[in-house]
Parts: sequence; structure tokens; C-alpha cells
Amino acid sequence: MAAALKVPLSIIRHRCVRRSSATVRTICSLSTFTFQASSLYLRPQRYVRHISASVNEEASARLAADSAESGGPTIFDKIISKEIPSSIVYEDDKVLAFRDINPQAPVHVLVIPKVRDGLTQLGKAQTRHAEILGQLLYASKVVADKEGIADGYRVVINNGPSACQSVYHLHLHVLGGRQMKWPPG
Amino acid sequence: MAAALKVPLSIIRHRCVRRSSATVRTICSLSTFTFQASSLYLRPQRYVRHISASVNEEASARLAADSAESGGPTIFDKIISKEIPSSIVYEDDKVLAFRDINPQAPVHVLVIPKVRDGLTQLGKAQTRHAEILGQLLYASKVVADKEGIADGYRVVINNGPSACQSVYHLHLHVLGGRQMKWPPG
Repeated sequence: MAAALKVPLSIIRHRCVRRSSATVRTICSLSTFTFQASSLYLRPQRYVRHISASVNEEASARLAADSAESGGPTIFDKIISKEIPSSIVYEDDKVLAFRDINPQAPVHVLVIPKVRDGLTQLGKAQTRHAEILGQLLYASKVVADKEGIADGYRVVINNGPSACQSVYHLHLHVLGGRQMKWPPG
Repeated sequence: MAAALKVPLSIIRHRCVRRSSATVRTICSLSTFTFQASSLYLRPQRYVRHISASVNEEASARLAADSAESGGPTIFDKIISKEIPSSIVYEDDKVLAFRDINPQAPVHVLVIPKVRDGLTQLGKAQTRHAEILGQLLYASKVVADKEGIADGYRVVINNGPSACQSVYHLHLHVLGGRQMKWPPG
């Protein structure tokens, strides 16, 4: 169960919607997700998407935080090792950038350090991490250029459950391709 | 007029709401702001705040972008030089962090490089900027610690008008003290 909690709910959801509703209930026992899945057939899709994205990410973030202190491996380790396939946008020796499986904008890419080195979240950064932090932020700019959204994009880092962090491996969200609103969530 | 456009609308608004409506119209000729100010008396405040924040920041960002390429000074230069007072949260030789005058969360701090060095926005970053980018991100973590929101906060960078960038001097928003929603704007 602990391992399952480290998988971001968005990824679980993405997999589940491609299965039957019975399978969904078997794989995803989280009540918030079950609610969202069944509601898809009752409400206008855009409305449900907006509400469920926020509610699910908040619930997912709270659950993920419970096991965050263990410092154990996350879904990102398997993405880095290519054990789990991803749509890679950019890669160098320190940084990997791949598309979010549950995009919140036409372009939505996650930028992560290949070696976590204690950076379960930004809040764990020490002065020695400044170099990799700079590389991650610069890589976000490179990703935006490669994705053709240089004219307009938002970079977001969530730290902790109240910011909707659902994977405890530092990651930067790069979102663009639509008008972003204010406030930022 | 060009100089006025470089002042973020949030700062203009903050100043204006403390003056009479006649003065508001004299100082703030932006139609979006005039609409927002007069609407304050017609609708429930929370609703107006949410809508106007997004609409105004989008309009402000579009106007700011028109003069961004000039690379001229911005309101932040006067904040750095202390010509305009601000509520400083953190400062070192490279970075300044001060409270946003139109906060979108109980804690809302802006983190900027003291020397812009071409960084009107993240999209202008070159490899030589990686060091200051890392310092800015690390400073965001320090700010969160100092503000007592280490358990939960979001860091946001807006690049270009479609992301609501309204000052062309790179700045990181650090927001916390409330549940942040998803998607991030």
C-alpha cells in the first residue's frame, strides 16, 4: 500500500480510465477517485475535470505526504531508469524532462533531477543543491523553447500537501499553450 | 505612458483603492482597472476579487509585454534601490525578496535577482545564468522557512503575457498559508 501511495493519482487515473469501471474499482480504492470516475457520466465533462483535478490532486498530495518521510523510491525512479516508459522532451546527464501524463495545459512537462540526492522537495534543499536547482530551472527554459511555447509559459513547484505535491522527488511543472489564470491555483 | 505600463497593475490597484474614485480615474486610465474598481460596489467582494485578479493580471501582462523588449528599468529597480519602500523578507548580495503588494495567499513573496543582467524573464536565460537561477530557487526555500510555510507552498514563475507576467525583471512568486488548487491557474 505504501508503494502504491507514491504513485501520483493523476497517473493512476490516466491508466484507469482505459479500463472497465469494475477494474477501476479494483485498482483504485481511493474514494476520491471512485467519486470522480462515476461522476464523469453525470456532469458536463469540463466542469467535472476542473473540480476533480483539484480535489484529486489535493487528496493525492495528502496521501503521498504520509509516506514522504520514508525517502523511498518513487514512480520517477522507474521513469528515470526507463522501466516505465515516458514521453521524454529533454535529457542530459543531470536532468530529465518528460510529459505529464495528466496534462493541465496543451504543453505540460515535468523537469526532474536524475539523482534525487535528498531533494524529495524544494524544502529539503541545502546550499549544496543550488547548482542542480539552477540546472533544473535553466532546463525548464530549454524545454519551453523545444515545445514551442517560449512566448508564454508558467513554471510551478509544489512543496507539500497544501501545494498539491504528490510525488516526493523534486519536480518542476512547465505549462503552456493556453492562457494561464491568476491566481495560480 | 511607456513607463507607467511597466508598473504592475496590482501595485497600481493597491495604491488607487486608497484614493477617491475621481483620483482613481486620473491616475489609472486602464479600462480594465476602471471596470474593476467600479464593480467593487455591485458584486460580492470575494467573487469580484477572483474574477478581477485574473482579468486584470491578464490585461496588465499584455500591456507590459508591449514595452518589454525595450529592456528599460522596471518598478523592481526602484524597489532594489529602496527608492520605493517594500516589505523585505530576505536579502543577500545577489537576491532580494519582498512581499507582493497584492497577495494571492496569506504569504506571497517575490524573489528577484538584484542585477537583472538581461533576465527580463526566464525565457531570456543563458547557460551563464544557471548560477543565479539556482540562488533564486534556493532563496525561495529560505523565504518559505522564514515565513513559517515550510510545510506547504508553491513557487511560480510567469513567462510572457499568456502566463500573466507583468514586470519584465525575472521574479519568482512564493505563495503559501492556504490550500493551493490544481491546476495552477
